[in-house]
Amino acid sequence: MAKLLYSASTSTDGFIAGVGGDMSWLTPYLGPNPTMDDVAARTGALLVGRRTFGGDDPYRDLPGEGEAFGGGWEGPQFVLTHRPPADPVPGVTFVSDLATAVARAREAAGDGYVNVLGADVARQCLAAGLLDEVLVSVAPVLLGDGVRLFDHPGGSTVRLEPVGVTQAPPVTNIWLRVVR
Amino acid sequence: MAKLLYSASTSTDGFIAGVGGDMSWLTPYLGPNPTMDDVAARTGALLVGRRTFGGDDPYRDLPGEGEAFGGGWEGPQFVLTHRPPADPVPGVTFVSDLATAVARAREAAGDGYVNVLGADVARQCLAAGLLDEVLVSVAPVLLGDGVRLFDHPGGSTVRLEPVGVTQAPPVTNIWLRVVR
Repeated sequence: MAKLLYSASTSTDGFIAGVGGDMSWLTPYLGPNPTMDDVAARTGALLVGRRTFGGDDPYRDLPGEGEAFGGGWEGPQFVLTHRPPADPVPGVTFVSDLATAVARAREAAGDGYVNVLGADVARQCLAAGLLDEVLVSVAPVLLGDGVRLFDHPGGSTVRLEPVGVTQAPPVTNIWLRVVR
Repeated sequence: MAKLLYSASTSTDGFIAGVGGDMSWLTPYLGPNPTMDDVAARTGALLVGRRTFGGDDPYRDLPGEGEAFGGGWEGPQFVLTHRPPADPVPGVTFVSDLATAVARAREAAGDGYVNVLGADVARQCLAAGLLDEVLVSVAPVLLGDGVRLFDHPGGSTVRLEPVGVTQAPPVTNIWLRVVR
C-alpha cells in the first residue's frame, strides 16, 4: 500500500510559509535538490490541502509557476476541501473527507508515495494515524511568524526516527519515519 | 572579539521547549553529540535569558542536573534580567541591560564563544545586530506548541548561511552564520 509522506520546505525556525501564506521567502532556496528529485520520481499521487492548492507559489514569475514541484512532477492530485471550485481542474480531484481522499490517493499512487502537501492536511493525517514519513528541507533563514510545519495548540509529542540526512547546499534535507 | 553563538536543541517543528517551558521532551535525545562537546570546549562564557536560567532542565533527575551543558562546561555566566535573585549565585553575574551583558560576556569569553542560551535573549541579540552564528540540534520529534526557536510576531527575514551539518544520531546539527 502506498505510504504517505509529508514533505515540506521549512525555515530553520519551523515555518513552511510566511505571514498570510507568503511563499516568496523560499524562492532564493529553489536550487537543485537531488533528494527532492528522488521524491518526485517516487511520488504516485499528491494529497493537497486547500490552502496549499490555492495558495502562493514560490515559483511565481519563474519557469514552473503553478506546477507541482515547480514542473518536476505530473500526476493525479487529490485536494481535500469542502469548497471545490465551480469548474473542473484537469488532473485534480476534489474530495471532502480525509479517509476517502487518502484511499483514493493511495489507489492512484500504486507503489509510489502519496506526497502530502500542506500543514493542516498533514496534521489531520497524523491525528488519524495515517502518516508514514516526514521530509523537511531546512532552508537557512529565520521567519519568526507564519504557517508552521506542525501546529497543535496545547502541544503534542509525535515521535519520529531518522531515515537519512542529505545536503543540497544551502538546504539540509531531514527524512524521518513516524513512530507508531 | 568573542563571537556570539545562539545554540539550541529544537524539535523538527522548531520548538526549543514545550508548553510552559517543559524541557522533558529533550531528555530522550541527550545522547553523545561531538559537535556540542566541541561547542562546549570553545565556549568562554554564557549569556543566558532569565527564563532559561530559572527554567526546566532536560537533565532533571539525571547526572548533570542544574549544570551548564549537563555538566560538560564550567565558566562565567551572565544572566540578562531585571529581577536578580536576592542572594548571589557563584559564577553567575546578573545584568539588566543587553549591551552591558554582551560586553561583559565577550570580555569574559576571551577568544572563545559567548554561547547565547534562550530564545528571547537570542532574539534581542539578533535585533541589535550582535548575533554571529546559530547552531540548531534538530531532534526527531514534533511538539506542535511551546517556546519557539525564534519568535517575531508579524514576521521577519533573517538570512543565514551554512557553516556545516553534522549528525549525532538521531540528532542533526545545523550550524549557520548570520548574514549581515
